[in-house]
Amino acid sequence: MLKKIKRPVSKLEAFRKRVYVIIYGIDTRAGKAFDIGLLIAILLSVFTIMLETVEGVNQVFHQELTILEWVFTILFTLEFALRIFVSDKPFKYIFSFYGLIDFLSILPMFLSVFIIGSQVLTSLRILRLLRLFRVLRLMEFMEESSKLKLALLASRAKIMVFLYTVLIISVLIGTLMYYVEGPDNGFTSIPRSVFYTIVTLTTVGYGDMVPSTAIGQFLSMVLMVTGYGIIAVPTGIVGAEMVKGAARGREKGRRQVQNNDLHLLNGLVCPHCGKDDHREDADYCYHCGYQLHDENAGADPDKK
Amino acid sequence: MLKKIKRPVSKLEAFRKRVYVIIYGIDTRAGKAFDIGLLIAILLSVFTIMLETVEGVNQVFHQELTILEWVFTILFTLEFALRIFVSDKPFKYIFSFYGLIDFLSILPMFLSVFIIGSQVLTSLRILRLLRLFRVLRLMEFMEESSKLKLALLASRAKIMVFLYTVLIISVLIGTLMYYVEGPDNGFTSIPRSVFYTIVTLTTVGYGDMVPSTAIGQFLSMVLMVTGYGIIAVPTGIVGAEMVKGAARGREKGRRQVQNNDLHLLNGLVCPHCGKDDHREDADYCYHCGYQLHDENAGADPDKK
Amino acid sequence: MLKKIKRPVSKLEAFRKRVYVIIYGIDTRAGKAFDIGLLIAILLSVFTIMLETVEGVNQVFHQELTILEWVFTILFTLEFALRIFVSDKPFKYIFSFYGLIDFLSILPMFLSVFIIGSQVLTSLRILRLLRLFRVLRLMEFMEESSKLKLALLASRAKIMVFLYTVLIISVLIGTLMYYVEGPDNGFTSIPRSVFYTIVTLTTVGYGDMVPSTAIGQFLSMVLMVTGYGIIAVPTGIVGAEMVKGAARGREKGRRQVQNNDLHLLNGLVCPHCGKDDHREDADYCYHCGYQLHDENAGADPDKK
Amino acid sequence: MLKKIKRPVSKLEAFRKRVYVIIYGIDTRAGKAFDIGLLIAILLSVFTIMLETVEGVNQVFHQELTILEWVFTILFTLEFALRIFVSDKPFKYIFSFYGLIDFLSILPMFLSVFIIGSQVLTSLRILRLLRLFRVLRLMEFMEESSKLKLALLASRAKIMVFLYTVLIISVLIGTLMYYVEGPDNGFTSIPRSVFYTIVTLTTVGYGDMVPSTAIGQFLSMVLMVTGYGIIAVPTGIVGAEMVKGAARGREKGRRQVQNNDLHLLNGLVCPHCGKDDHREDADYCYHCGYQLHDENAGADPDKK
Repeated sequence: MLKKIKRPVSKLEAFRKRVYVIIYGIDTRAGKAFDIGLLIAILLSVFTIMLETVEGVNQVFHQELTILEWVFTILFTLEFALRIFVSDKPFKYIFSFYGLIDFLSILPMFLSVFIIGSQVLTSLRILRLLRLFRVLRLMEFMEESSKLKLALLASRAKIMVFLYTVLIISVLIGTLMYYVEGPDNGFTSIPRSVFYTIVTLTTVGYGDMVPSTAIGQFLSMVLMVTGYGIIAVPTGIVGAEMVKGAARGREKGRRQVQNNDLHLLNGLVCPHCGKDDHREDADYCYHCGYQLHDENAGADPDKK
Repeated sequence: MLKKIKRPVSKLEAFRKRVYVIIYGIDTRAGKAFDIGLLIAILLSVFTIMLETVEGVNQVFHQELTILEWVFTILFTLEFALRIFVSDKPFKYIFSFYGLIDFLSILPMFLSVFIIGSQVLTSLRILRLLRLFRVLRLMEFMEESSKLKLALLASRAKIMVFLYTVLIISVLIGTLMYYVEGPDNGFTSIPRSVFYTIVTLTTVGYGDMVPSTAIGQFLSMVLMVTGYGIIAVPTGIVGAEMVKGAARGREKGRRQVQNNDLHLLNGLVCPHCGKDDHREDADYCYHCGYQLHDENAGADPDKK
Repeated sequence: MLKKIKRPVSKLEAFRKRVYVIIYGIDTRAGKAFDIGLLIAILLSVFTIMLETVEGVNQVFHQELTILEWVFTILFTLEFALRIFVSDKPFKYIFSFYGLIDFLSILPMFLSVFIIGSQVLTSLRILRLLRLFRVLRLMEFMEESSKLKLALLASRAKIMVFLYTVLIISVLIGTLMYYVEGPDNGFTSIPRSVFYTIVTLTTVGYGDMVPSTAIGQFLSMVLMVTGYGIIAVPTGIVGAEMVKGAARGREKGRRQVQNNDLHLLNGLVCPHCGKDDHREDADYCYHCGYQLHDENAGADPDKK
Repeated sequence: MLKKIKRPVSKLEAFRKRVYVIIYGIDTRAGKAFDIGLLIAILLSVFTIMLETVEGVNQVFHQELTILEWVFTILFTLEFALRIFVSDKPFKYIFSFYGLIDFLSILPMFLSVFIIGSQVLTSLRILRLLRLFRVLRLMEFMEESSKLKLALLASRAKIMVFLYTVLIISVLIGTLMYYVEGPDNGFTSIPRSVFYTIVTLTTVGYGDMVPSTAIGQFLSMVLMVTGYGIIAVPTGIVGAEMVKGAARGREKGRRQVQNNDLHLLNGLVCPHCGKDDHREDADYCYHCGYQLHDENAGADPDKK
């Protein structure tokens, strides 16, 4: 390998560069094709793992599935090797989050050759699904995704307070339910009662545990109506955050300024009368008619 | 048929025109009556099909239901024939979405005469329910419907990202649940576990599968609370979109001008360069700097 | 009775007036006390009816409950008689919505004396719960209640379109589920399948019917995620409507004008510079400092 | 104890002061450490109580759990004593809400020495979870928490009206379901039917009671769709309230001034009459007509 690198440096380097762009890039057509191919391979591989656990399918197609597993393992191993080979700092990749996932997803199959029973670990490959988040880059969804993330982050503290309250209430009422219903009615322990409380409060309602006493039923009704009502809280939080986010986004688009001087040059504040809040594409101040932009100015970073 | 068309062209043409307006139009009283009649016929026909599958009812009223089926089939066949006859481009109708549905909904009954067992296909007539979306045109709901569609379309990308994330999480946690609970507790395969995960995350909670192990119960509680909490995300998305949509609508409503002259007088359109969409309190055109309002003008009805 | 009315007209009339104010009014202390007493009587009477159906309770306290029933019946009969006696147009009351409810709630008990078995009808008294909506007048909730009603009315058309779509989808997918799962898996008829579909789509999830086939489970998962996602739609509709309602409310409070001249007098538009959009309680124009209200002016209908 | 206080007053006082700051304060490092320690102790103690009710665990680790209980009891007793000792008005603490909880959480364990069976009361210690709300002070969540509280308080009346309506509907339809389904189908009494109605309306759906008759199923479908639809109401209420709250917050944040002089310079508070809350672009005080801005003033940092 060292030899290879030494001799046709320029050629090999060029190849590495090219492969690098394909594997890590998303702007070229080849890069996109690679990502889509990877996406499909991951989905198929996950599908294979899932089918293997379905008894009927596994009995009939055991051999085919095993072959498929090996095919995917080899494919992913190749990809893994390429990523290391191509990367300038291979160790940084290997010990990165996705590097570890990639490694964990090929390891079990090789182990299964030596250690019987380790095949169970092949399900680790399902972790590769996380890579799908990566592939999002491909799509138009990226911006939306980050908007969602922002809204969730902004309302994180509020949601934490909400969950904190919900959990404390669940434990308190769960304990109460334990003493009200008792082990004879299926509420065998406080943890199980808390499980019931959460099942009820979140309106999941499995129905495996159901209150039998009048007080327990009354408490449960209160719980249900509470759960039904307070779902409004996280919803309201995120909704308000997204409305704000949209408003902020509009405002930002209007007045995003990195540099104060630039700010004035951009005409966001009328240099003549000091008014701001102009339309994004305004050329003249709406208040005094002053020409905001020098018509000869280059690309306006604020214009969209 | 050719003969018919050739001889009394004008009369037949007039008839066709009249029927065309009735069948395809919605503005005349006859057209509305036709649509409402069709609506009722479809609902009754669907009701008949549903009743036929109820054993008790079918045993007692088998003959009546069969007669009804034939009545509806003949009615719909007549309608189908009329639509073709009346249409200027019959093939365009036949191969349109609704044309195919109309055809599929009458075909099975005729087939059942020749082929025994094909009567099962009569349920295809239920597809006619889709026509009900068509009948929406009749109602005041049309505008609301398109507003809803707009809000959903605008938030499509965000909702896709949300569902994408939900599905990946479901598969990952479903796999985990499979290994935590195992086939002995009803989690017989990964697909079934994923089914359970989705049943729990969406707060449906059938209760046909319930975790038995402590870890499984803990995981499920996390799932429930997550599902209960992140419902806020799509809700917030659509809500924000509708608030935005309403704001847009209001703004438009405010600026929408029935009369162009009035419009110009209002200064909403710059009389110099023709741009509109000025700030409400703009005195000068943002585009050309033209003074929009005569400072001495009286009350500006658009200023708020 | 005629005699009574003829002789001491003035006294009786005065009594009638006084009772009228108590029964129909809500502004006097006696009127409020009457309404609260009625509220409690209705709740206790409903509670009695509910307890009667609980077997254990009924066996032990049968006699007590029967006595209570008669007490409530007599009370409500007295109230009914008083309402008729006091009203100027008794027939208008008798044939009004609440009049019929009041009548239906006392009738069955009297019938039960003559006709055995008619006691079952006593549950009709539960309809009296509807009177509770009336008692709302008492409370501060009234305004909030009408705001809610407005928001719901405003979004009625949108919610109808939503439910319409949900129902059509439910019938279509319910039919599909019937053919996919079949009677052997509990999907015994299309109506039952539609029941299952709605149970799933609304995230209720009883679990009495659960798909057994792979396709059925897949379809159900799609249903659940759909149901989980489109709950956002009505929520977004009402939420947007309430945000709008709040905005409208604010705007109205700011500028509610019955009369244009009054408008100017109110100082909502500065008579000096023509600016409006002042604070509600502004005494001076924010723009030119002109004194808006004549300090000696009487009650300002716009001030809140 | 009296002796102690009398002799080394200054020293003891100093100690008391120091401990007071640690126990009741949150600003010092020691105070924070104490609160976090308490938080952990409470959680562990609650966890112990929960484990004790799990039969398998209790059988194996009975002794260890009892020891742990005593450890926590002694710890909390010490804390309780310290709080009393350190407080200037010990009785005010003892009879405060948290004082009673602290007392109730240590009492049962001591009682259990004398009275057999009173150990059941140890679960009262779970009430200490309520203290966790106190510890919130520690965290950044405090402000968010109060924002949430404000939004909920503001929409309290609307939510009450909503729940009121939901409950009346539940009782009415529950009664109807009782007569439609009857005791043979599990609807043994009206209270149980109301329980079913609420289980359905809130989309919990245990599935322990399921309608068997066609009418009952139809009614249930209506209930489900209603419950699915009207969840939008509380959600819309709280959401609208939070959007309003955010708007108010933004406005305040914009006007909030750390420095009073700056405040006056900004003209946010009228220097003449002291009123604030002017329009953003106000030039004159709305209350006294005083000219707020010196027209020659430079860029106004609060103007946007």
